[in-house]
Amino acid sequence: MEEESRSRNLLVDIYPLRCYYFSSKEAVPEKDDSVVDRIQRMRSNYAANGLRTCVEGVLLVELFQQPHLLLLQVKNSFFKLPGGRLRPGESDVEGLKRKLSSKLSRYNSSVNDDWEIGECLGMWWRSGFETLPFPYLPPSSRRPKECIKLFLIKLPMSRRFIVPKNAKLLAVPLCQIHDNCETYGPVIAGIPQLLSKFSFNIVQD
Amino acid sequence: MEEESRSRNLLVDIYPLRCYYFSSKEAVPEKDDSVVDRIQRMRSNYAANGLRTCVEGVLLVELFQQPHLLLLQVKNSFFKLPGGRLRPGESDVEGLKRKLSSKLSRYNSSVNDDWEIGECLGMWWRSGFETLPFPYLPPSSRRPKECIKLFLIKLPMSRRFIVPKNAKLLAVPLCQIHDNCETYGPVIAGIPQLLSKFSFNIVQD
Repeated sequence: MEEESRSRNLLVDIYPLRCYYFSSKEAVPEKDDSVVDRIQRMRSNYAANGLRTCVEGVLLVELFQQPHLLLLQVKNSFFKLPGGRLRPGESDVEGLKRKLSSKLSRYNSSVNDDWEIGECLGMWWRSGFETLPFPYLPPSSRRPKECIKLFLIKLPMSRRFIVPKNAKLLAVPLCQIHDNCETYGPVIAGIPQLLSKFSFNIVQD
Repeated sequence: MEEESRSRNLLVDIYPLRCYYFSSKEAVPEKDDSVVDRIQRMRSNYAANGLRTCVEGVLLVELFQQPHLLLLQVKNSFFKLPGGRLRPGESDVEGLKRKLSSKLSRYNSSVNDDWEIGECLGMWWRSGFETLPFPYLPPSSRRPKECIKLFLIKLPMSRRFIVPKNAKLLAVPLCQIHDNCETYGPVIAGIPQLLSKFSFNIVQD
């Protein structure tokens, strides 16, 4: 019985890419013009609010019988998961719903709770403003600067994604992402491992 | 309420290394003298039984306020998680209890169920007898040869580990293992990521 309920939790329904619709909305300007600007912004936010917590969504679709991860590509260069920084006092789930709506729905959408937030898959920590993230709190780090939490998002059988004009939403197969830090960075490159305990049930319409 | 139960599942109690006792037992001979022998044995097992499923245990202790993973080092060279191959028809949990007892308890111990098997953390697949494992079933792989499943083991506050004389049981900090495929291979090197969603509660005696 216990084993049965274990396996049930490890089965994830995914739907073909063609079940989803894509359109665009006004560009959302990037907050920083340069890496230096970004670090400066992180420093002042840290001074004001302490540890920065980011929540990011892992959204999967089926293509060619394989699970694909939905990634935002910004300025035709770097890749991001949809998500962002929590406001002070905001819960992981509320913050992630707000961020998914702002990145993938109409901006002032009132249907924030149109997202089903699944389990936390992993967490990464940055001990300095300019350091790489690690999947643990580094032993010497007394005051971490950032925590990045990844959550599995359970997509419905169909929906419309509305993506800012300055970004693209791409479906990338797990085999291309695995261990490919150079292209995707360590957080995204590790997602196939974090998903490896699941079996995917491809639901055909 | 739902969030509360989520976070409870993500808290793992770990105990200081000094709570555990270590002794040795007769060497367990390695099954193969060479890589060629090993591949030959995997081929004949596959012909007889099909897909080989291995179950392996992730055992954690505290040292210097940090979680450490228990690894077996064989012949002073390569590192292994305690575990091994399921018998035909055997369940993951039964097989892993049997293997943990044979690697870390008295050999003919009747206390097989002295192990608390926690959740499945990840799975790796080998599509050929000589290929690297991947954390997904490779798209082209119709008949995978091996599946390796990792489970979190919940250790009691104290216990004795009895290790074969030709192996050593080492406690290695997660920060040394992360992304260190060269020393530990891809499966072990990915464990810090698979554990990253957990918070560790260090229980002092």
